[in-house]
Amino acid sequence: SMSELNVAVIYYSSTGSNYQLAKWAKEGAEAAGANAKLLKVQELAPMGAIESNPAWKEHYEATKDVQEASMDDLEWADAVIFSMPTRFGNLPSQMKQFLDTTGGLWANGKLVNKVVSGMSSASNAHGGQEATILALYNTMHHWGAIIASPGYSDPVQFAAGGNPYGVSVTVGQDGVMQENVEDAVKHQAKRTVDVATWVKKGQE
Amino acid sequence: SMSELNVAVIYYSSTGSNYQLAKWAKEGAEAAGANAKLLKVQELAPMGAIESNPAWKEHYEATKDVQEASMDDLEWADAVIFSMPTRFGNLPSQMKQFLDTTGGLWANGKLVNKVVSGMSSASNAHGGQEATILALYNTMHHWGAIIASPGYSDPVQFAAGGNPYGVSVTVGQDGVMQENVEDAVKHQAKRTVDVATWVKKGQE
Amino acid sequence: SMSELNVAVIYYSSTGSNYQLAKWAKEGAEAAGANAKLLKVQELAPMGAIESNPAWKEHYEATKDVQEASMDDLEWADAVIFSMPTRFGNLPSQMKQFLDTTGGLWANGKLVNKVVSGMSSASNAHGGQEATILALYNTMHHWGAIIASPGYSDPVQFAAGGNPYGVSVTVGQDGVMQENVEDAVKHQAKRTVDVATWVKKGQE
Amino acid sequence: SMSELNVAVIYYSSTGSNYQLAKWAKEGAEAAGANAKLLKVQELAPMGAIESNPAWKEHYEATKDVQEASMDDLEWADAVIFSMPTRFGNLPSQMKQFLDTTGGLWANGKLVNKVVSGMSSASNAHGGQEATILALYNTMHHWGAIIASPGYSDPVQFAAGGNPYGVSVTVGQDGVMQENVEDAVKHQAKRTVDVATWVKKGQE
Repeated sequence: SMSELNVAVIYYSSTGSNYQLAKWAKEGAEAAGANAKLLKVQELAPMGAIESNPAWKEHYEATKDVQEASMDDLEWADAVIFSMPTRFGNLPSQMKQFLDTTGGLWANGKLVNKVVSGMSSASNAHGGQEATILALYNTMHHWGAIIASPGYSDPVQFAAGGNPYGVSVTVGQDGVMQENVEDAVKHQAKRTVDVATWVKKGQE
Repeated sequence: SMSELNVAVIYYSSTGSNYQLAKWAKEGAEAAGANAKLLKVQELAPMGAIESNPAWKEHYEATKDVQEASMDDLEWADAVIFSMPTRFGNLPSQMKQFLDTTGGLWANGKLVNKVVSGMSSASNAHGGQEATILALYNTMHHWGAIIASPGYSDPVQFAAGGNPYGVSVTVGQDGVMQENVEDAVKHQAKRTVDVATWVKKGQE
Repeated sequence: SMSELNVAVIYYSSTGSNYQLAKWAKEGAEAAGANAKLLKVQELAPMGAIESNPAWKEHYEATKDVQEASMDDLEWADAVIFSMPTRFGNLPSQMKQFLDTTGGLWANGKLVNKVVSGMSSASNAHGGQEATILALYNTMHHWGAIIASPGYSDPVQFAAGGNPYGVSVTVGQDGVMQENVEDAVKHQAKRTVDVATWVKKGQE
Repeated sequence: SMSELNVAVIYYSSTGSNYQLAKWAKEGAEAAGANAKLLKVQELAPMGAIESNPAWKEHYEATKDVQEASMDDLEWADAVIFSMPTRFGNLPSQMKQFLDTTGGLWANGKLVNKVVSGMSSASNAHGGQEATILALYNTMHHWGAIIASPGYSDPVQFAAGGNPYGVSVTVGQDGVMQENVEDAVKHQAKRTVDVATWVKKGQE
């Protein structure tokens, strides 16, 4: 049944924006009837770098108890929603490192038919929001995943910047999101759940 | 029922390679139980250009009676498989022109949830086979389509060059395909049909 | 000498935004000491489509006398600046059609070392501004062009949305640009001229 | 003078293919009159993973003394040539991690006008060779680098697979390169040096 659909929301966040996007996605997935887990990827930066930035250190400490995503979580998940900031127009190395460790699942065909979508943030309005999500999808093709980006499937997206690849947000130096994207994130999560539910039900 | 799944195989071909890929895709879709239509996009090149290349002219004449893809075909289709050669690492203008005319359907939400995949060719081994299919998918995100690229969902793909974005082939100056991709094309068509069937059945 | 550097500003515009960006680029290139030509690409849409949109028709009529870009213009140019709206996250077919006709120059190595950059627009804030310029650059690699995108080479870009791939602008349904990008366009034009000047001078 | 042009060849390699490409690039850069350094990026994988693969372990041990790329190396370099295998159609996390640490140089404008190009490998013929180099270039735009991909600037490239984004090679499970790309790598290195020389000389 639909309540048995499993969603992993996997994020990387240094100062909290993508943690917030991921929490909204989890809420949206649950509101759509799915089981959802909020999972971070491992930090790679040295403590010195983290500690040199008070906002980063604060977020690092505040989310110490968030579970790290594992290969078991990926096997469990019917759908995966990713959220991460851009780093120079591509995934942060932390997220890429997580993806790079999925070779074992990949070799056993365990990633085929996962239903996926992605979200991003940047500090400039056009600072890689599109390019970062599209880079994620390149890897998803290798997985054999089914990509269910939001497109323009709901009017709520126009108010949130209209990024068809996935919800994105601009976050200034003050750490404040410059658009209100909560509803768009929840719509994207619902859409990912819906498509994953069809894919799962359809295979039964 | 599955036999009612509708697949549009939409291609552009100047000298016949992508026509051949498209025919195999149609056969693969039909073998998977779908209704399939083989549809070309409108030629944009002037007759002078076509006539200056005997292979192009011959193919142009030989496929005069192939139906041109219309907006009605897109509405009819549950799934769309695209095939086109690269033109400098991107879609040929003929295919892009067709996609550019879908604004009316787009504005009415008629393209959301189409299940899609793409195939390509180039005259060099790494002459844009990947980039061209990925460019197609960028547009598919705008449609709100569900992208079901082959990934590595079947061993048949490894023998055909292992392009996870979609089957691709290298075609030398002699017009001969340098890899045997027939089985991989048929697998990709079957996979597109399967996912589209799940998506359709799941929504019932 | 620097005054002999030749810049082709090649654009496609349906309702005028990219015509405006292109005019600013021409001014910027001239202010940087280059000879610059403003050149449109051929319209492909049928007159019926153009006439159904008053803003499109008005712009079409108003720019009837703008010269169309030719292969001779490309040979003449040391640098090329492109400007075009997104069409579903990729180049408009009109621009792609122009690029597709450069095969003859390409085969004779006449496009190698052209210094290039691109600009774009979309009606949503994240409606393909990044993806469209990046699609242009894929084709530029095939040319053997030298890509001199603006990056973050000047603070003026942060005020204009901070798109490192090229200046982009969001244009609402009312046809009004939502950001003030004039200075950033002129900076990009100057940067393209500067790099092209170095490349030209360096080869002497 | 030209002999003072500095080139950093920065690579990641697990079992040696990209180390070989990088060594050829260094030779090609030196043959073109530049000073060149061969520099690896830091390994991120745990020793357990490395030791589980004899070829990886052997290469890891054999290249222990290769210098790791530093921020000083980037400042020193007029040109940078990157080489790395694909990891699911994108950069390996090891290379991305290195790029992610360049924020300090970036913020001080120290990466603007670096002349760059990239190379790649994959185990399938179309396993991400194009996508990986294009992903690198997305980040290079953020740097404000000048991208001098090979395009089809020399006939030697056609024999090496004709990847216009950068030389790429297919490496089977046996670790053997399936194409002879040495000459194409050296051409790419020479081209990167030539463009960087023009850019440097032009600015004098």
